[in-house]
Amino acid sequence: MELNGVPIDDTFAEGFGTWIARIIVTGVTEEYAYNAAVEATGFATSAIGCPCEAGIEGFVSGEETPDGRPGVAILICGGKKKLKEQVLERIAECILTAPTAAAFDGLPEAEERHDIKMHFFGDKFEEKVEVGGRQCWKIPIMEGDYIGEEVYGMVKGVAGGNFFVMGENQMAALMGAQAAADAIATVPNTITSFPGGIVASGSKVGSLNYKFPIPATTNEKYCPSLKDKVPDSKIPDGVSAVYEIVINGLTEDDVKEAMAVGIEAAVMVPGVKFISAGNFDGNLGTFQFNLYDVLKE
Amino acid sequence: MELNGVPIDDTFAEGFGTWIARIIVTGVTEEYAYNAAVEATGFATSAIGCPCEAGIEGFVSGEETPDGRPGVAILICGGKKKLKEQVLERIAECILTAPTAAAFDGLPEAEERHDIKMHFFGDKFEEKVEVGGRQCWKIPIMEGDYIGEEVYGMVKGVAGGNFFVMGENQMAALMGAQAAADAIATVPNTITSFPGGIVASGSKVGSLNYKFPIPATTNEKYCPSLKDKVPDSKIPDGVSAVYEIVINGLTEDDVKEAMAVGIEAAVMVPGVKFISAGNFDGNLGTFQFNLYDVLKE
Amino acid sequence: MELNGVPIDDTFAEGFGTWIARIIVTGVTEEYAYNAAVEATGFATSAIGCPCEAGIEGFVSGEETPDGRPGVAILICGGKKKLKEQVLERIAECILTAPTAAAFDGLPEAEERHDIKMHFFGDKFEEKVEVGGRQCWKIPIMEGDYIGEEVYGMVKGVAGGNFFVMGENQMAALMGAQAAADAIATVPNTITSFPGGIVASGSKVGSLNYKFPIPATTNEKYCPSLKDKVPDSKIPDGVSAVYEIVINGLTEDDVKEAMAVGIEAAVMVPGVKFISAGNFDGNLGTFQFNLYDVLKE
Amino acid sequence: MELNGVPIDDTFAEGFGTWIARIIVTGVTEEYAYNAAVEATGFATSAIGCPCEAGIEGFVSGEETPDGRPGVAILICGGKKKLKEQVLERIAECILTAPTAAAFDGLPEAEERHDIKMHFFGDKFEEKVEVGGRQCWKIPIMEGDYIGEEVYGMVKGVAGGNFFVMGENQMAALMGAQAAADAIATVPNTITSFPGGIVASGSKVGSLNYKFPIPATTNEKYCPSLKDKVPDSKIPDGVSAVYEIVINGLTEDDVKEAMAVGIEAAVMVPGVKFISAGNFDGNLGTFQFNLYDVLKE
Repeated sequence: MELNGVPIDDTFAEGFGTWIARIIVTGVTEEYAYNAAVEATGFATSAIGCPCEAGIEGFVSGEETPDGRPGVAILICGGKKKLKEQVLERIAECILTAPTAAAFDGLPEAEERHDIKMHFFGDKFEEKVEVGGRQCWKIPIMEGDYIGEEVYGMVKGVAGGNFFVMGENQMAALMGAQAAADAIATVPNTITSFPGGIVASGSKVGSLNYKFPIPATTNEKYCPSLKDKVPDSKIPDGVSAVYEIVINGLTEDDVKEAMAVGIEAAVMVPGVKFISAGNFDGNLGTFQFNLYDVLKE
Repeated sequence: MELNGVPIDDTFAEGFGTWIARIIVTGVTEEYAYNAAVEATGFATSAIGCPCEAGIEGFVSGEETPDGRPGVAILICGGKKKLKEQVLERIAECILTAPTAAAFDGLPEAEERHDIKMHFFGDKFEEKVEVGGRQCWKIPIMEGDYIGEEVYGMVKGVAGGNFFVMGENQMAALMGAQAAADAIATVPNTITSFPGGIVASGSKVGSLNYKFPIPATTNEKYCPSLKDKVPDSKIPDGVSAVYEIVINGLTEDDVKEAMAVGIEAAVMVPGVKFISAGNFDGNLGTFQFNLYDVLKE
Repeated sequence: MELNGVPIDDTFAEGFGTWIARIIVTGVTEEYAYNAAVEATGFATSAIGCPCEAGIEGFVSGEETPDGRPGVAILICGGKKKLKEQVLERIAECILTAPTAAAFDGLPEAEERHDIKMHFFGDKFEEKVEVGGRQCWKIPIMEGDYIGEEVYGMVKGVAGGNFFVMGENQMAALMGAQAAADAIATVPNTITSFPGGIVASGSKVGSLNYKFPIPATTNEKYCPSLKDKVPDSKIPDGVSAVYEIVINGLTEDDVKEAMAVGIEAAVMVPGVKFISAGNFDGNLGTFQFNLYDVLKE
Repeated sequence: MELNGVPIDDTFAEGFGTWIARIIVTGVTEEYAYNAAVEATGFATSAIGCPCEAGIEGFVSGEETPDGRPGVAILICGGKKKLKEQVLERIAECILTAPTAAAFDGLPEAEERHDIKMHFFGDKFEEKVEVGGRQCWKIPIMEGDYIGEEVYGMVKGVAGGNFFVMGENQMAALMGAQAAADAIATVPNTITSFPGGIVASGSKVGSLNYKFPIPATTNEKYCPSLKDKVPDSKIPDGVSAVYEIVINGLTEDDVKEAMAVGIEAAVMVPGVKFISAGNFDGNLGTFQFNLYDVLKE
């Protein structure tokens, strides 16, 4: 299969189950909602070394937010217990503290719900108020009153949807990955948690050559500079750089949509030479996203 | 004392000692260095609930970086043990993974040094190289080769330098705080770790009204909406919103410079009515920054 | 009528007919399409002193652009003859010259069409090609080949839709206007041509006090600092700053939608005290947009 | 000569004399100063088809601006008569109208001075005031009072300093040009007037193949896709894309500094293969900037 002349590998991305919270961060203007959302989703690229995976889903207009102000939707992903802790900490430290920002539940239909009990911060000066049909707390703070929710829905979603953008050189691959990340930014219910939405260094579980335990080391089969030094290199001829786009989403369909939109954007960039995806031969993950299926839909 | 007609409170900011690492993040363009730096300094507003405090110090030109590429300097602050862990995790998860990004030590003269041993990620495919006089590791990754340092200096610096911007209404105080944060962004060796550089909700240690232990609750004396409800409110007449600017810096002089530049910017904004600072009567912190001294220098 | 507690004036905005071209600017990534669009729509706030009025309508995904790359839609507005000249000059100087950018017609159904004949720039090295069903020219340039259209539709649209955001002080009014401008940025087929979408200085036709001819002078009735110095000041009590949002759009309904969305955003900002609109008693313009009608729809 | 392994052509850039005004645009925050500066410098890439050449020089701190607020310095360039007209129109339409923005003279030492007489806009409600030692006008407007200067210095400076960034493919050349444009953005007294600072389509005077008069057509000798179709192609083997960086500056030394900084940044980008410069064999311009001289200083 080819798209805009770029061969698409006959393979699949392997994804994993994860719990996801969706939080609507609002602010007096888009800029202030965005600033809070950036802080709340930082240091959250990969569950391997970060306390969670998180990212910005996209802007939400004032017509769609509980308090009628402009907003930014974010997703926070992880194991259930860790997720509960991270939702509390990231709202308490990064949204409650941010100028004019407020947090609302972005999954009001979810059955699984967690109460972060942030109103204790009000030291009994807080009171209950209703905003846009939501039960909120009004907490006196320095800027005035913080008004937001404290019960958040969580759903079982998908982590690790992915594809590889391979280029004839690094800058071509990078711009292909950038075009993909930009395009995915418009897909609802999905995030790309790595810096700017792009992964430069893929990893394998464990280590081949070091004897002591290491959780993850470089995936030498996908390293262009090792193409002639390792057996079974996955780097096609004519490719000298690879970037991965990793997608988390609320549902399988959300992830598929993001993969399709991202691949279609990447292949438009001159110098992009091959599209593939990462998997563990189907042995580790719950979900398989075949590239041909994703692109045909 | 008045500045541009705005009264300056006769008080001082109380600061604390903290260990600080300074990392130079470089990239193929400013944009990609910046993307990595944003991710690496996220979820790091306050040591109360975040694993560290971190922020962007500023841009560094290619003439000043070890690899000659454009860079962004960041500071990471915390207790020594926690700081060592966070320097590793934030470089490994947020810079090694970021497209074209690399990390270099921004405190090469510091005596206290920590080796994050990130080269093990290379699984013995890595090799030592020298870049700009620095001992680096070249680690094969998907995008090509990551080339950066792994020993980072740490110094004893200052956390918690601060001042309050008080306004006749919320938007005036916010723009005053924004002008201050923008101005401080140009001061070397300093960061403001809160979202966009501005704090909306100050806290006091413990709780007055809840009987169970809470590490921090709202500082009711600085809440405008509680001015008439609590004794000893610190909110002056005519003020209805307060923002705090919190500054960490390598030295006392760096923090003073940032405080002065920030206050001078804030008082230029129409509707800003009063400037004060936060302290614990000198009982808790190592450093005292008197506002008059800071502004006279 | 009140909205979120803010009184809405019982008045109307008076709009004018204008010719409008809509151009889809594409690029290798959103950033490069945007850079070209910003340059092409600069120096174009008001037909009084600029060669045209122009602005960015919004982002267009690669699924909707003729060449499948990410794009930015812009509107250029003016008298028919001037518009033809400006469409040529702004495409030739600001899009043809911009890295990876290309221009396509955003009004393919329009009957009135203008051929800017830009292919002569190719000095007979150019050739015709079809892209996405559009008849394009491929012109060799330094970066490779420029591929875009050169016949552009024009329609009779609306200029001068507007409303006033009045605040208890300047920063409140400014943030109200900013929230409005942000919200309008998401409304298709409309632009706000002034810097950042906000007007700080309204004008009246001619002059009261200078005897020689001046095309426009300050509209003293809307100047808060002249409230007590001129008769018939339009500044309500409690208001000390006014910003105007001026909207151009393809149709009356587009302008109404933008006005409604913008006003609904502005009234959410604390310190915004009054919403009104500008007109010439219905004597000059073709269109009247009553605020109550606009908000009820 | 080589720089980071990239050959530097033994040639020179040919520059021209131009009149330049330097304007300091201030605002309540950097963002609002910047918004005004962007509008005021738009549609100003090349004097061939735009009314002037203009661009953003850089940010200026509140410590360096006449009114103590954050600022952005811009340069406007052109023939003396046209420049006077453009300084008036761009300040009147793009800065006076922009929220919180004000304009001040950035060349107070210049002997050649032009009075734009913008105070007539005040309709005799204006008054003289002194700000930071500058003679200003306070003009009542909707947002409050506009306070800025109206006499602007002009100096004879340099237009058309330039160099070419050539890459093994388009994305490599583009990122090289981007790194160059970013670096030049920090050089005082210089601008790059094209979109994002980068030129994609160079031109020659007149036409080879069309018989009717055309002021400028594509420079076929620098078109990679015509390398094998035209005699005397200037495209080296292995190069498939070229971007030009064009620099205007107050003095020859400013332009040289910008050229050096830009070239040094471009050669750091992987895939950049050659650096050259554009000239007319020394027949047309006043200034010659030899690449070797520029880089040795």
